[in-house]
Amino acid sequence: MKIALINENSQAAKNGIIHDALTTVVEPLGHDVHNYGMYSADDDAQVTYPMVGLLTGILLNSGAADFVVTGCGTGSGSMLAANAMPGVFCGLIVDPTDAFLFAQINDGNAIAMPYAKGFGWAAELNLQDCYRKLFEGESGVGYPKERAAIMKKNRGVLAELKAKTCHDMLTVLKSVDQELLKSAIAGEKFADLFYANSKDDAINDYLRSL
Amino acid sequence: MKIALINENSQAAKNGIIHDALTTVVEPLGHDVHNYGMYSADDDAQVTYPMVGLLTGILLNSGAADFVVTGCGTGSGSMLAANAMPGVFCGLIVDPTDAFLFAQINDGNAIAMPYAKGFGWAAELNLQDCYRKLFEGESGVGYPKERAAIMKKNRGVLAELKAKTCHDMLTVLKSVDQELLKSAIAGEKFADLFYANSKDDAINDYLRSL
Amino acid sequence: MKIALINENSQAAKNGIIHDALTTVVEPLGHDVHNYGMYSADDDAQVTYPMVGLLTGILLNSGAADFVVTGCGTGSGSMLAANAMPGVFCGLIVDPTDAFLFAQINDGNAIAMPYAKGFGWAAELNLQDCYRKLFEGESGVGYPKERAAIMKKNRGVLAELKAKTCHDMLTVLKSVDQELLKSAIAGEKFADLFYANSKDDAINDYLRSL
Amino acid sequence: MKIALINENSQAAKNGIIHDALTTVVEPLGHDVHNYGMYSADDDAQVTYPMVGLLTGILLNSGAADFVVTGCGTGSGSMLAANAMPGVFCGLIVDPTDAFLFAQINDGNAIAMPYAKGFGWAAELNLQDCYRKLFEGESGVGYPKERAAIMKKNRGVLAELKAKTCHDMLTVLKSVDQELLKSAIAGEKFADLFYANSKDDAINDYLRSL
Repeated sequence: MKIALINENSQAAKNGIIHDALTTVVEPLGHDVHNYGMYSADDDAQVTYPMVGLLTGILLNSGAADFVVTGCGTGSGSMLAANAMPGVFCGLIVDPTDAFLFAQINDGNAIAMPYAKGFGWAAELNLQDCYRKLFEGESGVGYPKERAAIMKKNRGVLAELKAKTCHDMLTVLKSVDQELLKSAIAGEKFADLFYANSKDDAINDYLRSL
Repeated sequence: MKIALINENSQAAKNGIIHDALTTVVEPLGHDVHNYGMYSADDDAQVTYPMVGLLTGILLNSGAADFVVTGCGTGSGSMLAANAMPGVFCGLIVDPTDAFLFAQINDGNAIAMPYAKGFGWAAELNLQDCYRKLFEGESGVGYPKERAAIMKKNRGVLAELKAKTCHDMLTVLKSVDQELLKSAIAGEKFADLFYANSKDDAINDYLRSL
Repeated sequence: MKIALINENSQAAKNGIIHDALTTVVEPLGHDVHNYGMYSADDDAQVTYPMVGLLTGILLNSGAADFVVTGCGTGSGSMLAANAMPGVFCGLIVDPTDAFLFAQINDGNAIAMPYAKGFGWAAELNLQDCYRKLFEGESGVGYPKERAAIMKKNRGVLAELKAKTCHDMLTVLKSVDQELLKSAIAGEKFADLFYANSKDDAINDYLRSL
Repeated sequence: MKIALINENSQAAKNGIIHDALTTVVEPLGHDVHNYGMYSADDDAQVTYPMVGLLTGILLNSGAADFVVTGCGTGSGSMLAANAMPGVFCGLIVDPTDAFLFAQINDGNAIAMPYAKGFGWAAELNLQDCYRKLFEGESGVGYPKERAAIMKKNRGVLAELKAKTCHDMLTVLKSVDQELLKSAIAGEKFADLFYANSKDDAINDYLRSL
């Protein structure tokens, strides 16, 4: 699985801690981590949480990433922004049981976590435990398993519902504030990571045209 | 403020506990609670979490409610469904500090809480404390207050972004699965509560036509 | 390691859930679980949390158990009672990071957990995760490991301090309310489990004399 | 009520934050805060968590304080040390519901909180909420109130039990490592705060003789 890590500006200084925790857990499981940044508080490209949402939408709808790990101070801003996008189902995860249940019941494609609120000493341990619950096994098998069918059905209904409420991603890209969009993809490694992995020519062409 | 309470089927049996906690806190503050249900596990009208999302979108976009309090087993399903709707900014709240920060930083118009995961003995105390943080004072003033301006700016950017990603609510109502929509508004008190409070004739007319 | 499970009366009905979670995790690691009970809410032998403390003291000071897993509604009563005993260092554990840090930093010989407060749906998952952190590896190696020496030193100072504040266990047994003591060891499996594992003849003799 | 604040060396730098949160809440309620320190990481008098326990025992058994607020990185070390002392019943508090339930059910005379684990941005809000639950009303009235009598009975049994397991405080003071004891009372404001408030001449005399 291609897992994209996206950090916004308020917690950019923690990108190293988060990236370490994520790779420590998921690389041995055979997943790749694409660190879209930010990388430090004073990066040239400043990514705010609305831009996180936009970037999450781009990565998931283009197939450049299979899953997005994001967050912000409380996790709420980046979660709201990600969930504003078509085809994005972003959980807010605080502890390992949240992570497990989100994976098994909701089977979403993104999570946001708080990287400031509640993020104290040894928080890297909780990150690792949450990532392990998300990525170590098959998702969407339900918990308890007897309820797998109804859980799957509800996910399908939600996905259909959201397909009706949102415009498709290419339309979104064309209609949103173009300066915001440019900023969302201005990260120093965006081009290298994205175009090598995206499977959507129309999105690629549009972003290259900017 | 008109606060709508929406419970889905998996936690319907707790509607009484949640309604009591909510009214205990917010009525003395001068707010009204509209209990859209479900009211018990065996209500005729079974509301699933995708329906919760749809109903949340209807209530907020029509002005029938100023704020929606919802949730489900983990809170995630109802949060995802609510955030799939235009104009809805739904936080996932676990503790009072979450509630305070969501109100002050994100200034959303809906919250989802977990009513099964972590919901043990004395959980009604935590509900009350969360509601108090959300509804006792002015929201959106920032925390810390020195960062109020940047927080407000980001909220504005997110609201504009979401306005571009989503269809308007009336379009949504017309395009979603009409059986799902009928089920979402089939609660026994929906008609009484909604039409008396909605400020949007087009939404009213469309829903009445179903 | 011999791990004793002790449940008091208010949460006795959950003994099965807790015992399952504990054995699921620790038996594959090579540890034994001795379920001292209670086993259900209507057991003949009703164990209150002060009795839990006394029983914990007996098991750990006699060597009948190497570690005690206990708890109550909030965990606080059983934790206070256990820590009132000589030679008992009982943590209050809520989440897996608590469990890990307690094992590595404090290296205690007992934990209490809340089995009512915060104990909702899927709580068995958190129990398992906590037990895994406690019992899967070597304890007392410090976190971070660079601070292992100072952490070990402080544990030693605390152990010496507590050796001065408390009477020895045999003295305690002789001086406490003898009816309370009899009730603490009245569980239906106490005699079978205890006398087969205790390494302290004086304690055995005294308890047999009651 | 006289509330003593005791911070140990690992979290000494947070004494200001904790003291501010505590005074903000309890002074308007009519309580006094005695800040025994530490005050900063580089204080001359370095207080470790075993010393916190000893100091807690001194303050509560002498009547110099009615309640002790302490803690350490995870809260566990200071909690264990405090509970090793005669007459001390120290809870480990993480959230406001913990605080409320500890006050109402256990009615202890000390709390420890984690000041590093889970202590992130806006943690001062949680401190204030916890302190409010502890100190704003009458303690020991039970929750739910119907169970007040049985809760009170268990507290009494625990207090009697602990009275049998521990030596009295003066005996403790005479038997513990005298260098540890001197360090525990070496804080720069100890003498001013303690001798003005202690009600126990024998403890005063012994400490003055050191």
